Amino acid sequence: MISEKMKPFVKNNSAIRIMFEEGNRLRQQYGPENVFDFSLGNPSVPAPDSVRQAIIDLVNETEPTVIHGYMNNAGFEDVRQTIAESLNRRFGTTFAAKNLIMTVGAASGLNITLKAILNPGEEVIVFAPYFLEYGAYVRNYDGVLVEVTPDTSTFQPNLAEFAEKITPKTRAVIVNTPHNPTGVVYSEETIKKLAAILEEKQKEFGTVIYLISDEPYRELAYDGVFVPYLTKYYANTIVGYSYSKSLSLPGERIGYVVIPDEADGADELIQATTIANRVSGAVNAPSLMQKVIARCVDEKTDVAAYDKNRQALYNGLKELGFECIKPEGAFYLFVKSPVPDEKEFVNAGKKYNILMVPGSSFACPGYMRLAYCVAYETIVNALPQFRKLAEEYHLL
Amino acid sequence: MISEKMKPFVKNNSAIRIMFEEGNRLRQQYGPENVFDFSLGNPSVPAPDSVRQAIIDLVNETEPTVIHGYMNNAGFEDVRQTIAESLNRRFGTTFAAKNLIMTVGAASGLNITLKAILNPGEEVIVFAPYFLEYGAYVRNYDGVLVEVTPDTSTFQPNLAEFAEKITPKTRAVIVNTPHNPTGVVYSEETIKKLAAILEEKQKEFGTVIYLISDEPYRELAYDGVFVPYLTKYYANTIVGYSYSKSLSLPGERIGYVVIPDEADGADELIQATTIANRVSGAVNAPSLMQKVIARCVDEKTDVAAYDKNRQALYNGLKELGFECIKPEGAFYLFVKSPVPDEKEFVNAGKKYNILMVPGSSFACPGYMRLAYCVAYETIVNALPQFRKLAEEYHLL
Repeated sequence: MISEKMKPFVKNNSAIRIMFEEGNRLRQQYGPENVFDFSLGNPSVPAPDSVRQAIIDLVNETEPTVIHGYMNNAGFEDVRQTIAESLNRRFGTTFAAKNLIMTVGAASGLNITLKAILNPGEEVIVFAPYFLEYGAYVRNYDGVLVEVTPDTSTFQPNLAEFAEKITPKTRAVIVNTPHNPTGVVYSEETIKKLAAILEEKQKEFGTVIYLISDEPYRELAYDGVFVPYLTKYYANTIVGYSYSKSLSLPGERIGYVVIPDEADGADELIQATTIANRVSGAVNAPSLMQKVIARCVDEKTDVAAYDKNRQALYNGLKELGFECIKPEGAFYLFVKSPVPDEKEFVNAGKKYNILMVPGSSFACPGYMRLAYCVAYETIVNALPQFRKLAEEYHLL
Repeated sequence: MISEKMKPFVKNNSAIRIMFEEGNRLRQQYGPENVFDFSLGNPSVPAPDSVRQAIIDLVNETEPTVIHGYMNNAGFEDVRQTIAESLNRRFGTTFAAKNLIMTVGAASGLNITLKAILNPGEEVIVFAPYFLEYGAYVRNYDGVLVEVTPDTSTFQPNLAEFAEKITPKTRAVIVNTPHNPTGVVYSEETIKKLAAILEEKQKEFGTVIYLISDEPYRELAYDGVFVPYLTKYYANTIVGYSYSKSLSLPGERIGYVVIPDEADGADELIQATTIANRVSGAVNAPSLMQKVIARCVDEKTDVAAYDKNRQALYNGLKELGFECIKPEGAFYLFVKSPVPDEKEFVNAGKKYNILMVPGSSFACPGYMRLAYCVAYETIVNALPQFRKLAEEYHLL
């Protein structure tokens, strides 16, 4: 009854559902406070109170036909201008309203970007480990996903292999920094090298290769680490942003795409992406939330809360003998499995009511992702359970 | 720089933009009160005040991590259950939460439904005149749009031609009643005949043909006309609903899809459509608006205001000698052009600051669509201008 393209998804979905149901079963059996769920990237820090106030003020002050009405498919002009100016202040860029398209979150932003640029059979390069949904997005437009294998010593992108995998069919590269699932931030040196490779390959093949920067975690950076703004390093950069994590609004589906004037064919690309927003069915980003963002454009989430979690979980696990790169951003730890088959280890964790995501869900087996966007107490209470797990696996 | 699939859209978009800019030019030159813009289907009736109150109450009463947080890709369970019960009360159906998938408006609902069922080359039948975006949605999944020519005497679907156009490749039929652009409501007799044809063809070809009912205008019906609920007439019906018109929330992108248990492969289809919601990039319908809908589930827009407009514009134009079916629903008049090339007539209208949409934008040349979701005064003030137009075309 369903399309051939959807069949593997439905098959695969059962596995995710079983995992989800397992979590619910554990919570019912042991009580939610005794289950240590590190599987979900759902922000634990609430949206700033200014978001609540902006919502109330807006619905009280604005005509309902405006605040809930249609606008240009790219979004309200004043909202886009406000965000552009905020970006320009922060990053020294020169964007205007026309360079921004408000989107139904980053996922929709990536989809409309790919829809705008990708022909069937063209290639999109990603660096493992990566968010597996990228593969679904690329296949939505009959593109081909090309994986670069991970450099597990640093989890910076493997640039030598990257250069080899660029072909005349390469249409785009997706990067995500701060990075899900490793928490790594790509260094400026990495970005410069990556840009130089892309420039060289564009020249060699006479093609245009877009660098798509998926940035939901941009604001979640620790220890004063520098997070380069990629349009400044490579002209053909398209930025996909989301307020899901930066303002803790994941359910509201609000973000934007930036297409700078410097990008090849920028005007046509902006038009095509805006039309893709319409014909994909999104039509426009939710109207009230657009206006809320404009009022809260300089608000920040409580990064210190995530940082406290990061230190507690990272230090706790290191003391127990686990191997892990110290993350500089996002809210994930990517921990090395003590045994080659990390799924076995993930299953062992369940005995101690610990829920983790196997690295194979990010095309990087042998590791587990732990999302530390949880209550601090969850981490404190989980560590004795991790100790039992470490003992079982003879890490101590 | 853009994909082949998007090129015709970008080319075509220029025409729409020229029309939009023309309207802005007229408004600047003559003042907005002297421009009679009947081109846009943007509700003129504001959202009920209960929507404003629900928004304020919800953000004051609910945890931000819940009200703005992720949920199942199908939407909040309690919201779906509330809507299901409301439908059951109104239409005698037996839906449960699991039969509903909350969507980013009807456009996204149609897209994820088509993504779930359509294989490349499979056919989707539409009845002209129709919302031209249907073609874009079908092409998103490499389907083939098959048009049934209009019965311009009634604008009820041409069922003889419909039966002939069903083939073993027919995967779905899209109907839209109350209808954009004609305002016609498909009668129960029509629906019964249409269902019988589908049943027969399913048997003949051994196929499953889904009837997709696009229902953004369901609540906008006049003169007590009966609007049949299609799942009761044909088991393989999928309903796509939107609150854009019924609660005047078009910018918020909130609606749902109903897949009844009686539909062939319902469980798998619900799963596939839910996953399509995720991988299309929508992920879920905006969270706050989902909760608002649940609180306002029995609210109604001011249908009387649209009815007043309908009577004024219909009677006014008939008196001036224009030919038009009296609409029983939605907020459109589909007026016969006094000359075969309706684009000429639409252009002539601009001389009198009247903006209309040519019927060829709905695959039905020779007609113009007038959206009467405008201020009542706009209609009153437009009629003397229509008189001049009627005189120019010797209708009087």
